[in-house]
Amino acid sequence: VTAAAAPSVLAKAAIVAVGSELLETTKVDTNSLFITEQLNAVGIDVVSKHVAGDDRAVLTHVLRSALAGVDLLVVCGGLGPTDDDLTREAVAEVLARPLAEDAALVDQLKRRYASRGLSVPMPLNNLRQAMVPAGGVVLDNPNGSAPGLWMDHGAQAVVLLPGPPRELKPMMRELAGARLRPRASGVAIVRRMLRISGRFESHIDQALHPLYEEWAAASPPIAATILATLGQIELHLSVRHASREQGAAMLERATAQAVGVIGEDVFSTDGRRLEEVVGDALSSRGLWLAAAESCTGGLVTSRLTDVAGSSRYVGTSIVAYANEAKTSLLGVPEALLAAHGAVSEPVARAMAEGVRSRAGADLGLGITGIAGPGGGTPEKPVGTVAIALASSDRTDARTFRFFGDRELVKFQASQAALDMVRRHLRAE
Amino acid sequence: VTAAAAPSVLAKAAIVAVGSELLETTKVDTNSLFITEQLNAVGIDVVSKHVAGDDRAVLTHVLRSALAGVDLLVVCGGLGPTDDDLTREAVAEVLARPLAEDAALVDQLKRRYASRGLSVPMPLNNLRQAMVPAGGVVLDNPNGSAPGLWMDHGAQAVVLLPGPPRELKPMMRELAGARLRPRASGVAIVRRMLRISGRFESHIDQALHPLYEEWAAASPPIAATILATLGQIELHLSVRHASREQGAAMLERATAQAVGVIGEDVFSTDGRRLEEVVGDALSSRGLWLAAAESCTGGLVTSRLTDVAGSSRYVGTSIVAYANEAKTSLLGVPEALLAAHGAVSEPVARAMAEGVRSRAGADLGLGITGIAGPGGGTPEKPVGTVAIALASSDRTDARTFRFFGDRELVKFQASQAALDMVRRHLRAE
Repeated sequence: VTAAAAPSVLAKAAIVAVGSELLETTKVDTNSLFITEQLNAVGIDVVSKHVAGDDRAVLTHVLRSALAGVDLLVVCGGLGPTDDDLTREAVAEVLARPLAEDAALVDQLKRRYASRGLSVPMPLNNLRQAMVPAGGVVLDNPNGSAPGLWMDHGAQAVVLLPGPPRELKPMMRELAGARLRPRASGVAIVRRMLRISGRFESHIDQALHPLYEEWAAASPPIAATILATLGQIELHLSVRHASREQGAAMLERATAQAVGVIGEDVFSTDGRRLEEVVGDALSSRGLWLAAAESCTGGLVTSRLTDVAGSSRYVGTSIVAYANEAKTSLLGVPEALLAAHGAVSEPVARAMAEGVRSRAGADLGLGITGIAGPGGGTPEKPVGTVAIALASSDRTDARTFRFFGDRELVKFQASQAALDMVRRHLRAE
Repeated sequence: VTAAAAPSVLAKAAIVAVGSELLETTKVDTNSLFITEQLNAVGIDVVSKHVAGDDRAVLTHVLRSALAGVDLLVVCGGLGPTDDDLTREAVAEVLARPLAEDAALVDQLKRRYASRGLSVPMPLNNLRQAMVPAGGVVLDNPNGSAPGLWMDHGAQAVVLLPGPPRELKPMMRELAGARLRPRASGVAIVRRMLRISGRFESHIDQALHPLYEEWAAASPPIAATILATLGQIELHLSVRHASREQGAAMLERATAQAVGVIGEDVFSTDGRRLEEVVGDALSSRGLWLAAAESCTGGLVTSRLTDVAGSSRYVGTSIVAYANEAKTSLLGVPEALLAAHGAVSEPVARAMAEGVRSRAGADLGLGITGIAGPGGGTPEKPVGTVAIALASSDRTDARTFRFFGDRELVKFQASQAALDMVRRHLRAE
């Protein structure tokens, strides 16, 4: 790549996330997911991702090698005011451009600092954020002090964005629309995801095999990947198409084919999570749901209320962790608890019916199980969960055996409970 | 680096995760967190991390550049039997070693396949997993068919591990103990994390400044990083020490110094999350907590019940999303709701007192707010949350303004509520 070449179509990108905390044992880079979404939408493919710490030599090496072979390099993080923030310097070195203070940026930083009304003068270090490599274009950051930077480098382009997601996201969105779309091929990668419950990955894989072949032979071909995640299977479809609409139409047909094969186990074809699907089904029917949660400890209701507008169908839930709560608040007979144990279908049924009538809801969920690590027995090992759903005319109950630790059991139980509601509403 | 050099101390590592799904918009590499933990424990530093898809040219480029400048390259994923699994071929190319079928591995694969009792003969593709680069040492995979590989490459070492975490983790653990520890410096990176509530990052930074200087001057120096995460600030301390015990003792002293400066805003010095800290405080005092949750929708109780043993202090909670639920289940007077609105300190107080008495608990939490996106007003914008804590002799209430979308507001409200309980128990 020579610095003299004319700008070309941006087709391939690499992403570098900068920050020593991303090399420790608890933090992963998630900014690249949003960046990828925005790039894919205008037809730019991400071919590699990298993380480098706040070490000038390593960062320079990673930037140089990430830049080789791509049209666009997106770097996020390391643009703050401290001595640890080395992205500007490292990029300037890799692109062989001197850094210089940008007068407009200095003004802007001073005004921003003054508006905070602090008594101490602005630390000199803040001026680092006004340093711009020669030929760099400043990208406004409406939510923070670190500006972004855009540099054309021969046929390539390099973009620097701040690391905090609430600063990065609006800037990346603006960038994709204003600067990247006109330079990209427009052959967008259109994606679609189907979410499936109640089946094993291998079953889905087998059932879809004839479709895989048909999709691979299509023009342009449709790529399909199956991923098993906690409590659900995801089918990812994608196609590269010069027309976003026609690409979307191809995936619409492929989605219908997959649903034809898999049936009602497909619970989402448009990115909605299970709690949204259930919420929409309740809302459109004007029904209220109440949950009596024991082992899930409020997780089912918390997931339902993650959805905007959930106050239209969730009014009341009761977390009855203790047996006394099951008796006093839900009306579960003590004799039932004594006869079957708290983790049993009869108790789940009584909880579902109890919360339904006490909350004056249309549907009542009862969930009781052993989340672990303690409390398991040979007959009812950790992971045993009984779930019941009560409606005006019937109560259904099922017993599940989930694997994994406490949080995994809780999540799978909440997923199974929401899926029971979904299937009930579908069958109605 | 020449291939003839003698093996040296392994000090710096790079990690490459292979798989096109890691370049899409939903999945992040998390294997590297566990790998980093294991490497750090024997004194190996991770200087960069990389993700490459199932593309031979890109993968080769990424492997080559990741290997440059490190002593150890850990590659995970892409070792399966399909044509998409290119890690073996790419590594063989980068190290310039021919691949050859390993007779023992062929036998092992055949035996493994036969033991599954399938009627179809083993697909020939499976033999790809028996290909070993010249000089490669096979690493047993007790949980899957793809073996790992170890290659000495001059003074460097390259390790290939399968991608599925349940296969990778035991192999990485074995590798760290058996092959890496003897080759590493043994100067382990010891880490400690303090979690802090109720302060701004900049305040903490300022308060700790004298300590930073003292720590940097220590021998060996203690590194400190502050990270603002949702609803809390984290202070990460680390030190490289030939003696794990002495390193830990240095961090123990540094932790005590930081707590001396920051005070009771430090809620955790041993990795415990806020719900664990609150749970332990309740449990050790033999107290029961009940929550009346409106805008948090069960999240506070769900977080509390994520902790094993929480049935010792959580018996009952009530999610009172609707006003009728607040009145009928919690006894909040309708007049109070009418006079102050559902999102108000008087209503939060009545909810806290109501759930405390109805659940027969020692402490009652009342949480009512506007999670958004709808429901905000000029006086009570989205993010306004009133939280009250009732005990036998008093009820305290506070109003917060949280930023961000619905899920962020819910989380911050749950964090503030748990922190009120923590501070109350501390003050007792």
